[in-house]
Amino acid sequence: MFATLKFAALLLAVVVCWATQDYDYNDAEIDEEPTLGDSPYGSLWPLPQKVQISTVVFKLSGASFHIFDAKASSSGASCRLLQNAYRRYDEYIFTSSRKQGQNKSKKALASDMSELQVWITSADSECDSYPSVTSDESYKLSVDSPVAVLKAPKVWGALRGLETFSQLVYKDEYGAKSINRTDIHDFPRFAHRGLLLDTSRHFLPIKVILANLEAMAWNKFNVFHWHIVDDPSFPYLSRTFPQLSQHGAYHPYTHVYTPSDVKMIIEFARLRGIRVVPEFDTPGHTQSWGKGQKDLLTPCYSGASPSGSFGPVNPMLNTTYDFMSMFFKEVNTVFPDAYVHLGGDEVDFSCWKSNPDIQKFMEQQGFGMDYSKLESFYIQRLLDIVTTTNKGYMIWQEVFDNGVKLKSDTVVHVWMGNKVEEELQKVTEAGFTTILSAPWYLDYISYGQDWQKFYRAEPLSFKGTDAQKKLVIGGEACLWGEYVDATNLTPRLWPRASAVGERLWSDRDVRDLNDAYSRLAKHRCRMVQRGIPAEPLFTGYCAHEYKGV
Amino acid sequence: MFATLKFAALLLAVVVCWATQDYDYNDAEIDEEPTLGDSPYGSLWPLPQKVQISTVVFKLSGASFHIFDAKASSSGASCRLLQNAYRRYDEYIFTSSRKQGQNKSKKALASDMSELQVWITSADSECDSYPSVTSDESYKLSVDSPVAVLKAPKVWGALRGLETFSQLVYKDEYGAKSINRTDIHDFPRFAHRGLLLDTSRHFLPIKVILANLEAMAWNKFNVFHWHIVDDPSFPYLSRTFPQLSQHGAYHPYTHVYTPSDVKMIIEFARLRGIRVVPEFDTPGHTQSWGKGQKDLLTPCYSGASPSGSFGPVNPMLNTTYDFMSMFFKEVNTVFPDAYVHLGGDEVDFSCWKSNPDIQKFMEQQGFGMDYSKLESFYIQRLLDIVTTTNKGYMIWQEVFDNGVKLKSDTVVHVWMGNKVEEELQKVTEAGFTTILSAPWYLDYISYGQDWQKFYRAEPLSFKGTDAQKKLVIGGEACLWGEYVDATNLTPRLWPRASAVGERLWSDRDVRDLNDAYSRLAKHRCRMVQRGIPAEPLFTGYCAHEYKGV
Repeated sequence: MFATLKFAALLLAVVVCWATQDYDYNDAEIDEEPTLGDSPYGSLWPLPQKVQISTVVFKLSGASFHIFDAKASSSGASCRLLQNAYRRYDEYIFTSSRKQGQNKSKKALASDMSELQVWITSADSECDSYPSVTSDESYKLSVDSPVAVLKAPKVWGALRGLETFSQLVYKDEYGAKSINRTDIHDFPRFAHRGLLLDTSRHFLPIKVILANLEAMAWNKFNVFHWHIVDDPSFPYLSRTFPQLSQHGAYHPYTHVYTPSDVKMIIEFARLRGIRVVPEFDTPGHTQSWGKGQKDLLTPCYSGASPSGSFGPVNPMLNTTYDFMSMFFKEVNTVFPDAYVHLGGDEVDFSCWKSNPDIQKFMEQQGFGMDYSKLESFYIQRLLDIVTTTNKGYMIWQEVFDNGVKLKSDTVVHVWMGNKVEEELQKVTEAGFTTILSAPWYLDYISYGQDWQKFYRAEPLSFKGTDAQKKLVIGGEACLWGEYVDATNLTPRLWPRASAVGERLWSDRDVRDLNDAYSRLAKHRCRMVQRGIPAEPLFTGYCAHEYKGV
Repeated sequence: MFATLKFAALLLAVVVCWATQDYDYNDAEIDEEPTLGDSPYGSLWPLPQKVQISTVVFKLSGASFHIFDAKASSSGASCRLLQNAYRRYDEYIFTSSRKQGQNKSKKALASDMSELQVWITSADSECDSYPSVTSDESYKLSVDSPVAVLKAPKVWGALRGLETFSQLVYKDEYGAKSINRTDIHDFPRFAHRGLLLDTSRHFLPIKVILANLEAMAWNKFNVFHWHIVDDPSFPYLSRTFPQLSQHGAYHPYTHVYTPSDVKMIIEFARLRGIRVVPEFDTPGHTQSWGKGQKDLLTPCYSGASPSGSFGPVNPMLNTTYDFMSMFFKEVNTVFPDAYVHLGGDEVDFSCWKSNPDIQKFMEQQGFGMDYSKLESFYIQRLLDIVTTTNKGYMIWQEVFDNGVKLKSDTVVHVWMGNKVEEELQKVTEAGFTTILSAPWYLDYISYGQDWQKFYRAEPLSFKGTDAQKKLVIGGEACLWGEYVDATNLTPRLWPRASAVGERLWSDRDVRDLNDAYSRLAKHRCRMVQRGIPAEPLFTGYCAHEYKGV
């Protein structure tokens, strides 16, 4: 029952503050099943900031209903982004019903909803821009007969509002597409709502990446953190250094992302209001770089002679920095986003320690035995290099912890599971913006409804001033690649990532598990109907089950 | 590297006994990663009982190679089961290479392998029979140029041998289909190698069931334990009692198995040497039965009046037994297997206790306050009913534990995680055949390589005589349906169930984790190439990644 779209007994409802306690990150109690029962908010996910849904119902006819640019809109037919979105949402809304040959000339009835007008209110719609961390994603949606109006300052808000509109449409008991009179004023709680996918531990075919970008848009995510290379493989085909993927990818042709693949992914994401932030993690996690780039990695020693294996990037050679300069110059041209993620996590010092040249270098630099100083030495030079390309950078928390001097616009990425609140306190006290991933490592699976654990996490529960809290610009769900590839990534990700999506978009007080369960079960069935194999939350069914295997 | 099929450096190898210790059921240490490194047995899975692989390599040409009935075979072109299998394995072996338009008239070269002759040696091939627990699945496979010969007493062994043959074929470094001179003598360690799927908690579309039957055959499973109905839904469309699915299924048309669906599944399974054992679990787990069948379930009471909710099957009414007689008469005609699973697990007594009529009945029968006696009373009568249909039955262990009088050919299904060895001891001491599922609940997921835990379990590690051990006829991997449906069932099942497949087929001493890892990684890539989204064991890649999302 919970899996069908029924608003029948819907009462006038406004967003109220749920009186619930805050949970901290380590709360792992997920035993209790939420009880079923329809949410007054139907299948809306993530829940908009302000919603008023009335009992008045309008019908949408596939023959007459259309999405149009409002006359006063600053964005017209030349805006490919919006025109593409109209087509997409028309298909989502009328899947399987328009196909059945209705009369296209049918006139709308009095109680019909005949069109959705999309009205970009600001002079610059940003139609041809890339989204950024400061993009305005707000929108107002007024659903009334015969015309629904979606107002947004920029196209980004229009995209979010179109998704919301599509989520308001349901089939009544006779199968007629219906929508209730509704007023919504919506905007994201956090500006950075990301998803990390790892294409190094397993290669992900383009098709899988695109499908998941699509699902991200349905969940109002706006950052694809592309952990593109790592120890196991280097699938990024660099124009400047093609040997990196030639020798470092699992396969030089079938398991790489060509320049045109990357371009396609970035444009596909842009059309959905999603930034693509690539991560090129150094100096650790770089084994695959060494296969195509001689002398880049530190040779490890076994006693007095090289062991044949390699460690992190070699921080003492000028050639290293020459390479990084050229490499990140290319990255800067290929990836339009204002930020690049530079990694900097989990550097293993044992190889550096074994190498007599490194030991000598440490001595010369006066680092004593403190190899974190060597790490910082490297990172500092790398950051300076990247700064010259005019990119901002994100880094994993260790770089901050080790006291590297960071630009003021650096984003510190908090991922370690212990002392999360202390870390957030420290980072924001130092005045840095930060994003949170620690509670949202979706690669860790367990039996049962672990979406609740992700859902309960609250990014602002740490102690700090209002100014400090404002520095938390969002978070990212991370699906590391050890155990996922094209075969199982998508169902493992959705709807578990949806829980993070609502936490980052909706109001802080939206945390009622029963209400969330009801909406999320419907939302996941909608994802299934749109072709994404989102896994079930629990026992039950969808009217339209997944058609694949 | 481990994901490609390479026999290049293969030495003459025979099966040796790995010197490994036995692990008990509760061993949960799965931290250590098995090291990579090619197995001398290539991608064989499950490992045959006796294998000799030589370094001599033959080529297979898609244009000239064929699978034929041997002239002396008792089974000819009229055996649809074998002809279907030949076509299937021809496709598996030559996928993507025959399509490329080779010259069909090309003659085999001297070093080519030109054909595989399949020779059924026993007078009755059993081509048109259903497989049973006593079916002979043994086969001998001799791969030599120009002809490979597969000898088997029955078609069942031929099916297993065809799979093994297909697993021996690999591409050499030039992409040429190759096979090494090989001698195999193979037979299963256990006669009952089952997989339980649950179509009640989530409905599984036919397509999903068929795909998984296919994968079962690749892993030499031979029993599909169809847990077809349970509390949440009743998707079995009964001819005699159509109201059961009409009211008890999630949806009366889209979420049911019609008689022709069931027939198709049974025939599809038969063609792969797989038995279909349906489970109709009573008296508990029957909530969905009550929706279409009035008075079947026990009304629960709240104080002196009925609460409106229902408990287990009502054991005191004659109508209950009349219903069961008719129902199982139908089951007997629909499902050809000699066994039906009657469930009998997890009966909750609270509803029976609340009901004054039941209380009175308990008194009349002299059961005192022992409700397990009431349960046994019901089960005993049910077993007698089923016995009259000439079916054998399987039951969950509680029925045995409660002292119900069982027919001597009853199969007791051990599933409870605690005291597994004691239970096996007791059941076999009492002279009953038994199958084991306790270590193989695949619905319980955890982070990491849990296939190793399933792989380590040893069914015969309990204390008992040889005669007792012989009563353990096998086991079943169980994938209960709370958290799986069409979106995620298949990748969650494979290759985790493959671990159970090898444990039940191969010699007891086949338990080297490194060797298993190497073979299983290749086996899972083969499953992916054949179209099943089997999930990865760990970081790595397949030459042909999954094409779906």
